[in-house]
Amino acid sequence: MRTAGLRTAEVIAVGSELLGSTRLDTNSLFLSERLAALGIELRIKSVVGDDRDDLASVFRQALSRADLVILTGGLGPTDDDLTREVVADVLGLPLDEDPSILDGIKRRFERRGLTMPPVNRRQAMVPRGATVLPNPNGTAPGLWLEHDGRVVVLLPGPPREMQPMVEALCAGPLRERAGEERLYRATLFVTARAESDVEQHVQPVYSRWRDAAPPIVTTILASPGQIELHLTTRDRDGAAAEGRLRDAVAQLTSILGEDVYSTDGRMLEEVLGDLLKARGLTIAAAESCTGGLFTSRLTDVPGSSAYVHSAVVAYDNAAKIALLDVPPASIDEHGAVSEPVALAMAEGIRARTGADVAVGITGIAGPGGGTPSKPVGTVVVAVIVPDRPAYVRTFQLLGGRAQVKWNAAQTALDRVRRLLDA
Amino acid sequence: MRTAGLRTAEVIAVGSELLGSTRLDTNSLFLSERLAALGIELRIKSVVGDDRDDLASVFRQALSRADLVILTGGLGPTDDDLTREVVADVLGLPLDEDPSILDGIKRRFERRGLTMPPVNRRQAMVPRGATVLPNPNGTAPGLWLEHDGRVVVLLPGPPREMQPMVEALCAGPLRERAGEERLYRATLFVTARAESDVEQHVQPVYSRWRDAAPPIVTTILASPGQIELHLTTRDRDGAAAEGRLRDAVAQLTSILGEDVYSTDGRMLEEVLGDLLKARGLTIAAAESCTGGLFTSRLTDVPGSSAYVHSAVVAYDNAAKIALLDVPPASIDEHGAVSEPVALAMAEGIRARTGADVAVGITGIAGPGGGTPSKPVGTVVVAVIVPDRPAYVRTFQLLGGRAQVKWNAAQTALDRVRRLLDA
Repeated sequence: MRTAGLRTAEVIAVGSELLGSTRLDTNSLFLSERLAALGIELRIKSVVGDDRDDLASVFRQALSRADLVILTGGLGPTDDDLTREVVADVLGLPLDEDPSILDGIKRRFERRGLTMPPVNRRQAMVPRGATVLPNPNGTAPGLWLEHDGRVVVLLPGPPREMQPMVEALCAGPLRERAGEERLYRATLFVTARAESDVEQHVQPVYSRWRDAAPPIVTTILASPGQIELHLTTRDRDGAAAEGRLRDAVAQLTSILGEDVYSTDGRMLEEVLGDLLKARGLTIAAAESCTGGLFTSRLTDVPGSSAYVHSAVVAYDNAAKIALLDVPPASIDEHGAVSEPVALAMAEGIRARTGADVAVGITGIAGPGGGTPSKPVGTVVVAVIVPDRPAYVRTFQLLGGRAQVKWNAAQTALDRVRRLLDA
Repeated sequence: MRTAGLRTAEVIAVGSELLGSTRLDTNSLFLSERLAALGIELRIKSVVGDDRDDLASVFRQALSRADLVILTGGLGPTDDDLTREVVADVLGLPLDEDPSILDGIKRRFERRGLTMPPVNRRQAMVPRGATVLPNPNGTAPGLWLEHDGRVVVLLPGPPREMQPMVEALCAGPLRERAGEERLYRATLFVTARAESDVEQHVQPVYSRWRDAAPPIVTTILASPGQIELHLTTRDRDGAAAEGRLRDAVAQLTSILGEDVYSTDGRMLEEVLGDLLKARGLTIAAAESCTGGLFTSRLTDVPGSSAYVHSAVVAYDNAAKIALLDVPPASIDEHGAVSEPVALAMAEGIRARTGADVAVGITGIAGPGGGTPSKPVGTVVVAVIVPDRPAYVRTFQLLGGRAQVKWNAAQTALDRVRRLLDA
C-alpha cells in the first residue's frame, strides 16, 4: 500500500454509444475539474466501446500508470454492461452477490409497483473487498477498490447519477487520499480581441510566472466570441495560492483593460444583468440578424425577468417598419444593414416600450445576402443608454451563419456592458 | 504487410488543454463518423496531455490493437509539441528535415511579410519513410506511415486544418486501404415521447434485426427535447444496404407515427422551415419564457428570412399588453401563464404582423416563479394556422431553466409542424 497521496488519475468512459458521432463525453470534463480541485491531475482519458478485450486492455494499462483509475458506465443490467466483470477479472477478484444491494434494487422496483426483472440481479454483483458507493439516483451503485496502492472507482455513466456520487467522493474518501497540495484556479474572460493579440500582450508577463517557485501556469483558449485565460497554481497553503492568483489576475487586467469582462467565472450575459440590476435599469432589444439570440441569452440568466422588458425580432423590412417605426426612407436610402437603421431600431423599441436601455442589431448572417460593400458578417450595433449620446458602430465578424449570429449577440452584449460600466 | 483492408481504428488526441474542463474534443467525433463511412470502426479514443512518456505508452498500446492509429495535435513548433518525435521514437525511425516542407513554411511567413522564426524548423522534421500530407490551412503538414501492416496518420489539432485533410484521406488513400464493406446509417428523430416509451414500442422490432444476416444495429439516444434512433448496417453492396435501411425506417415510422419528424437528418427547425416554404406561409411568434429562443432557432436555418416575419419577446406583463394587445383583464383573471393569455399573445402578434402562422409561448422556466398549481416547467403553447381552429395546450416540461427553455421552444416548433403537416 502506498502512503503518498493520489497525484495522477486516468478516466475510462465505457460505452459504444460514446464512440458515435452524436455524443460528447461531458463526464470526463466534470471529473477533470473536480479532481484538479483536489490536486489530482487527470493525465489520460479513454473512451472504450462495450468490448471485453478492449476494456481489459485499456484498464490494465491505466492501472500500470495512474494512482487513481475511474471507470464510468457499463454498470447497467444488460449483457452489454461489462465494467464490473472486466475489472474483477483484471484484478483477479471473484464477484459476490451483495444482499443489501439486491434488496435496494428490489425495493426501488417495488416502490413503482414493479417486480425486479431477473437481469437486474447482475447489478448486485461486487468484486470481493470492494466498498459500495450509494447511488441515490439510480439502481447501479458505484464501487471503490484498492489494489497494490492504486485506487479504482467504478461509477454509473448517466451524469445525473454520476455527478452527485463524485461530489460525495471528493468531499470524503478522495479528499482523504489526495495529497496536501491543492490546485487553485483563476479565469479571465476577454472580449473584442483576437487570440494572437491577447497572447502577444500577456505572454511576456505570464511566461515569468511559469518559472517562478511556486509556478503559475497560464493557458489561453479561444472560445466563440471570447478569449479565456486560465491560471492554475498548486499549494499546500490555500491563502498563499489565492493571494498569488489575485496578484496575477490584477496584472493581466491592468494590461488588457476593459476588454476583461469577468474574473469570477460569470458569463457576459450575467455580468450585463448584474450591471442592469445594480442600476435599476430595464432593457429592450430590436433584433434582426440575431433572430432573438441576444434576448434569449439575456434571459438564460435566472432572475432576468427583473430587467429584461421585451424585444422585437424584425427579420423582415416590413416588420422593421410596422413594429419598430423604422422610416421606410431610411431603409431605401441606406439599406436595412446600416447605422441609421440600427439606430432607428433602437429608438423604435425604446419609444414603444419605455425601457431604459435599448439595443438595435442588424446585419448579414449569411450564407446568402452579402454584397461587395456589405459582405456576410457585416453587423451594425446601436445602443441607447440613459444620459449618454447614442452609440452605433459597424463590425466585420468572421465565420459561418451560426458564428456570425453568436458573435453579433456577443458584440451587442459587450457594447451595452461597456457603456453601462463606463 | 497485411493485405486485408483496415477494419479497426484508434484515435489519440494530443494536448494538455484537451484534458481541461472547458474543451470538448470534437475532432474524434468527426473522425469516428468519417471512418465509419469507410467501414472502419473506431474502437478506442484517448486524450493525452503533452507528456512524452504518456504519449509513447498510449501510442504503443494503440499500435498493438488497431489497424489504423490516428494522432491529432502536437504538431506545432513549440517544445510542447511532441507527436512527431514520440511517433518516430516508438517506431524506431530517425527524423529527417524535409526541404520542401521547410520551403513551404518559409513561404507562408514571407507571404505575410514575416521571416520564419527558427522554432518553426521543427515542423519540417519527418520520420524516415513517411508520406507528407499537405495542410492547406496551416504550417504543420500531416504524415502517413506504414509499419508492420498498420497505418499511422498524424494530423494537426485545429479542426479547420484537420477536417479538410481527413476528407482528402477518406477520398484517397484511406478509401483504398479500407475493406470492401462500408457502413451505412439511417437516423429517425422523434419528439414528444420519453426514451422508455420509444424503447418499449420499437424494441420487439429492432431486436430481430440484430440477429438477422446481415444485421442492422439500432441504438436509442435521448438528446434534449428529442429521441434519436440510429440504425447502422454493413455491406459490400450499397444498394442492398440502403434498401434494408429504407425498409427498417419505414417499419419504425409506422410504429411511431407522426412523432417521427425526420428520417433524413434534418433538424426540427429545418423541417418546419421546409413546410412553411412549401406552403408559402410566413410565421411570427410571441414569446415569453423562451425569451427569443424559438425565433432564434427558426432563424438558425439558412434562407429562413423567406418565411420568418418577426417576433415579439414579451417577458414582462406590461410588454404583453403594450406590444401584443393582451387584455389586462385576462392576465389578472387567468395569470400570465395560462391558455387564454397564450392565445391572446398569438392573436396579438398575428394581428400586428399579418403573418400567416402565429405562435404564443408563455411559461415558467424557473428556478423561481413556480406555484403549487403552476410549478416550474409549466408551459403553454398556442398556435394559429390558416383554415383551422386555434390550438392551445398546457405542457409540464422537466429539467432546469435551460432545459425548460429549450424544450418549450422544441414543443412549440413541433406543434406548428404537426398542424401544418396534418
